[in-house]
Amino acid sequence: MAKISDKVINRLTLYHCILCDYINQGKIYISSGNIAKLLRIDDSQVRKDLNILNNSGKSRIGYHVQDLKISIEKTLGFQKSKKAFIIGAGNLGSALAKYDNFSDYGLNILALFDNDKNKIGKTVNNKIIFDISKLENLIYKSNVEIAILTVPTSAAQVMANFLVKSNIKYIWNFTPTVLDVPNGVVVWNENLMGNFLQFTFGK
Amino acid sequence: MAKISDKVINRLTLYHCILCDYINQGKIYISSGNIAKLLRIDDSQVRKDLNILNNSGKSRIGYHVQDLKISIEKTLGFQKSKKAFIIGAGNLGSALAKYDNFSDYGLNILALFDNDKNKIGKTVNNKIIFDISKLENLIYKSNVEIAILTVPTSAAQVMANFLVKSNIKYIWNFTPTVLDVPNGVVVWNENLMGNFLQFTFGK
Repeated sequence: MAKISDKVINRLTLYHCILCDYINQGKIYISSGNIAKLLRIDDSQVRKDLNILNNSGKSRIGYHVQDLKISIEKTLGFQKSKKAFIIGAGNLGSALAKYDNFSDYGLNILALFDNDKNKIGKTVNNKIIFDISKLENLIYKSNVEIAILTVPTSAAQVMANFLVKSNIKYIWNFTPTVLDVPNGVVVWNENLMGNFLQFTFGK
Repeated sequence: MAKISDKVINRLTLYHCILCDYINQGKIYISSGNIAKLLRIDDSQVRKDLNILNNSGKSRIGYHVQDLKISIEKTLGFQKSKKAFIIGAGNLGSALAKYDNFSDYGLNILALFDNDKNKIGKTVNNKIIFDISKLENLIYKSNVEIAILTVPTSAAQVMANFLVKSNIKYIWNFTPTVLDVPNGVVVWNENLMGNFLQFTFGK
């Protein structure tokens, strides 16, 4: 598969959101200019991004919305199921477990884990909250590679060590902690405050 | 103020997380190599970023952790208070309201808004949930410019229109919707799925 840069992936998912909106509104065609205007980027940028898709749906009146949506889904692998566990069934963990849009992108959250006896055995959006001691066994049985880390900051590194020991390969890190993990484990820092400061900096 | 690129802002906030960790561990000095290793980036990149700060804390044994932390906070304006309202007191909105780290970065969430009569008047982390009809008046009274949008996807555009009418200048958009807003209003799309796909794409 050809390498696609992070910025292009990010934009393609935003185009996908726009296409879903257009479908909901019953619209059949969309132009690169429609997309560019909503995102306040250059029309030429949109056309360049869409060229990556090998989409033949372009006609005189624009791109066919449904076809373009499917092209983006194929290119970014939305159909490819990616199984994940949420580590930490607090507010943020529960909110992410209830976020049904994730499954549209192939992200399947199978269960949550916590060490709070009052939470264990309960469900969030039909997903069971397991005792954290069951993690290693369930990773093995369910062949899960992705952990979504939403524990308190103070527990983040200890839990990351435990995830690594339990054979997790990808950590989507929502804690404001930079995790120290061995090579072979990939960490993606969600870094909400970094995003926020980018957006408001100097304004 | 000199322009700092989004990528540098993002990295500086991650360095800041590392420095907070070092302080918690009672460490006094840190080298650019320590930071680079944790983030798996180039040592030279870290030094280049830190040079922006006008920090004089560099000595033979490394940067002084406390001084470097303060330099980042000054440069990125953590002390500058940025007042915000959360629109939508659901799971994600409540999780963000409970996220106390935000105030360390100058983001002060004053209140939440919802249209659910069962939620209105209750509090989340000592912040009141107001009826959405009170929004315009409270924006005016409290001089709030930032809205954190966590409503359901189906309500996102309607609510964005209402925010614009109520004089909100910045929308931090957590919904998977590309909002159509007039010039003069800035939208930052958190785009969680775009971030996730960047991280797992092709793996």
